[in-house]
Amino acid sequence: MADAKTLDDLFLDTLKDIYFAEKQIVKALPKMAKAAQSPQLRAGFEKHLGETEGHVERLEQIFDILDVPARGKTCEAILGILEEGKSIMEDFKDTPALDAGLVSAAQAVEHYEIARYGTLKAWAKQMGRVDVMKLLEATENEEIATDQALSQVATTEVNKKAA
Amino acid sequence: MADAKTLDDLFLDTLKDIYFAEKQIVKALPKMAKAAQSPQLRAGFEKHLGETEGHVERLEQIFDILDVPARGKTCEAILGILEEGKSIMEDFKDTPALDAGLVSAAQAVEHYEIARYGTLKAWAKQMGRVDVMKLLEATENEEIATDQALSQVATTEVNKKAA
Repeated sequence: MADAKTLDDLFLDTLKDIYFAEKQIVKALPKMAKAAQSPQLRAGFEKHLGETEGHVERLEQIFDILDVPARGKTCEAILGILEEGKSIMEDFKDTPALDAGLVSAAQAVEHYEIARYGTLKAWAKQMGRVDVMKLLEATENEEIATDQALSQVATTEVNKKAA
Repeated sequence: MADAKTLDDLFLDTLKDIYFAEKQIVKALPKMAKAAQSPQLRAGFEKHLGETEGHVERLEQIFDILDVPARGKTCEAILGILEEGKSIMEDFKDTPALDAGLVSAAQAVEHYEIARYGTLKAWAKQMGRVDVMKLLEATENEEIATDQALSQVATTEVNKKAA
């Protein structure tokens, strides 16, 4: 019954995708914080780790509202994005450009999440699920703020140091 | 001489990454256009294919300005993002949710590019390369406009059809 699939199925698939992604990010952020040379950047990663744990919880709330088990689905996109971040950490270890590379990797992560939460929010709205939409929006706003904070640390500190 | 690596190296690495990515996107867009059910969405993908070919050319101009050969470097991130798009095309084939899934996949691609061009632009500015910065900015603006156009087609047409 392929033609029975609707927005509900697509929403659930994408919810599982970002749930898997958020859990991968929870694992990656402590490594990025440890690698960061700038105390300001390290503090930023540590702050965002706390937020990301909150994002996982919000997704679990959504699974609960929808009455389906909270289960991830392998997200090839986040694995690829994090793999590139890992390569930067290795290739630029002990160089003045490391922090600029870490910011770049982190902003690729943030933008993936901004895309996914923006999509899920629009779908929740279409589905008439205002409660779910508000949870998604709360996380989306934190991802946007994190992206902006990373741009700030890049232009005021780490890019200059790398040049 | 690990510590000899600077922003120039990081810039070049990331330029190769997005060059590889743009070429993959040139290959993926005709498949997405062909799969789209909505004529408006199909036209959008076709328009963006033309723009993306221009992005490849702009990157080649930048390689030329920097006097290095235009060469890509495998970008695991875009491969993962496009792989997810391919799964959506397969899983939602012939369903009312297909177009909504295609928009979602395309917006993940756009956001990856927005992140990368934003980073490269900031680095070019730091390196004092205004000529390079302007080329990157021209592409970034087209990626942002494409993302907005996709949101528009999602909320006005394809999400309703998928629901």
